[in-house]
Amino acid sequence: MDRGGAAITVSDAGEFGLIARIAARLGTGASDGVLVGPGDDAAVVTAPDGRVVVTTDLTVEGRHFRLEWSSPYDVGRRAAARRRADGAAMGGRATPGVVALAAPPDQPREWADGLADGLRDECALVGAVVVGGDVSADDHVTIAVTALGDLAGRSPVLRAGAVPGDVVVVAGRLGYAAAGLALLQAGRADEALAGAHRRPQVAYAAAARLAAAGATAMVDVSDGLVADLGHVAAASGVRIELATDDLPLPADLVEAALALGVDPMAWVAGGGDDHAFAATMPGDAALRAVTLLADLPEPVPFAQVGRVVAGAGVTFVDAPPPGVGGHEHWRA
Amino acid sequence: MDRGGAAITVSDAGEFGLIARIAARLGTGASDGVLVGPGDDAAVVTAPDGRVVVTTDLTVEGRHFRLEWSSPYDVGRRAAARRRADGAAMGGRATPGVVALAAPPDQPREWADGLADGLRDECALVGAVVVGGDVSADDHVTIAVTALGDLAGRSPVLRAGAVPGDVVVVAGRLGYAAAGLALLQAGRADEALAGAHRRPQVAYAAAARLAAAGATAMVDVSDGLVADLGHVAAASGVRIELATDDLPLPADLVEAALALGVDPMAWVAGGGDDHAFAATMPGDAALRAVTLLADLPEPVPFAQVGRVVAGAGVTFVDAPPPGVGGHEHWRA
Repeated sequence: MDRGGAAITVSDAGEFGLIARIAARLGTGASDGVLVGPGDDAAVVTAPDGRVVVTTDLTVEGRHFRLEWSSPYDVGRRAAARRRADGAAMGGRATPGVVALAAPPDQPREWADGLADGLRDECALVGAVVVGGDVSADDHVTIAVTALGDLAGRSPVLRAGAVPGDVVVVAGRLGYAAAGLALLQAGRADEALAGAHRRPQVAYAAAARLAAAGATAMVDVSDGLVADLGHVAAASGVRIELATDDLPLPADLVEAALALGVDPMAWVAGGGDDHAFAATMPGDAALRAVTLLADLPEPVPFAQVGRVVAGAGVTFVDAPPPGVGGHEHWRA
Repeated sequence: MDRGGAAITVSDAGEFGLIARIAARLGTGASDGVLVGPGDDAAVVTAPDGRVVVTTDLTVEGRHFRLEWSSPYDVGRRAAARRRADGAAMGGRATPGVVALAAPPDQPREWADGLADGLRDECALVGAVVVGGDVSADDHVTIAVTALGDLAGRSPVLRAGAVPGDVVVVAGRLGYAAAGLALLQAGRADEALAGAHRRPQVAYAAAARLAAAGATAMVDVSDGLVADLGHVAAASGVRIELATDDLPLPADLVEAALALGVDPMAWVAGGGDDHAFAATMPGDAALRAVTLLADLPEPVPFAQVGRVVAGAGVTFVDAPPPGVGGHEHWRA
């Protein structure tokens, strides 16, 4: 695709010029937790707990975003959010991250500026900075984000800790990003929902509070609620029993689904990329969670959606939503 | 390109099947330093020093390797070597790493197996494992490797520590990967040198010994000796004075250069990707380094190639080699 014609491109100042420009934009200097910042062979960051949480993945143009649908700022926000949500789901606090970027030599330099701003601002939501990285040439944009975290003396909240008797709760939005993507694909403009695809609103603070309330297992919903709870069920050796009637169904999603002639519960139960936090915990811990979440400056949607029982897999006590198989990158 | 026709592909078992297969291949279980292994939202690894070294980048098909020139095992070895060399250049010891892979759905599954084996075996050279990661679909292969390290109570060896009066030393091979790539591009088969492009032989143990000897600055030579020493000069606020006559010129490179009708010193001074370690240190430290390196089970090429003086940039006391501007990904 045409990436900017006569605009100033990422390659005009060379590889090292681009790295210096992005590093300046990220504003990483003597920030908390950064011992050696950008510009050396590697960065050095603090790990006060003596353990470090680490998670990485790729955000790929044409697979995870389209240049014509998302601003570079949104792409940066989303690429960082995907990793920061995974880190938050371990129950720790965020420490710096690193980014590697591949981009075509004719990618406009302003695009890279916007990307850097988005990465910086999303990481700032969890009090983290981007401390280093690298750039390569490619025929499209790929962004590799690695996020680090610190456990501050606590045990990580794993997928394997759910026990029969726990309840299943969700904090954050479900189905918004999937609805937004469906609207974009159908050529319908709905800025609120399209925005949820472009830039998820991750309730990072909710993850820490679910952990503090006593979550026995936690996962961020990136592949779809049923798919991700399936990972929890498999890792914990339990069955998770959901009720379709208990899944939150906001009016925004009902309206979008009516416009497209589809069942909105498919988005709620199967749509990924909102990065809500699904957790299991004893019933009294869920009551504590309600109290802790009510104390947040921004309200976070919260719902009890099911319970943990003996067995395997994810089942429904009532009619399951359509298409709850979850998300597979290879088969999308 | 045709990636395997009717072979079993990476997508046949789905995303989670592929991740499980790679994780099994990597063999990461209760390895040293791994507290939470593959399969959760994030991994958790030890950081006994309370600081963690982190470095990341992308290895891109068609830019850093070609499927027709490199086996998947070699691609894995090289992708890991690029990061592990950067980590070693900080003077620490390796701890686990994470990998994200993007690949076409029709990439043969055996290719991913070979890649995983190569990543595992290169990391094993530094006593590290690959502890987690993710997979995505794309139209070609991209591998994001993030390597972590521990400083074991020592200060990191930065690029900024060179002082006038230091000597400049290099441990490891220079120019081999560039010569191998030139031979491959010219359609000439030379397995020894082509192998140096496919899979660098990184003298990891030498980096630790240069640090122990008293290196004031260190860098791994990924962009070319002159370019990378230019980074040291800039970070340290000094000039680095080299002598072309002191650069090592092995017979293998002379022979290859004669065959291609080029000047082999261009490979030695400007070729990247061998990941030799260039360091600055006082003269007595360089003598200690000679002793420490002589003690390694495998001999490592070692040369004193210049000195640190007041000023800026990299200069030559004699005629500079051709094309010493170093490597720029955007302008290659």
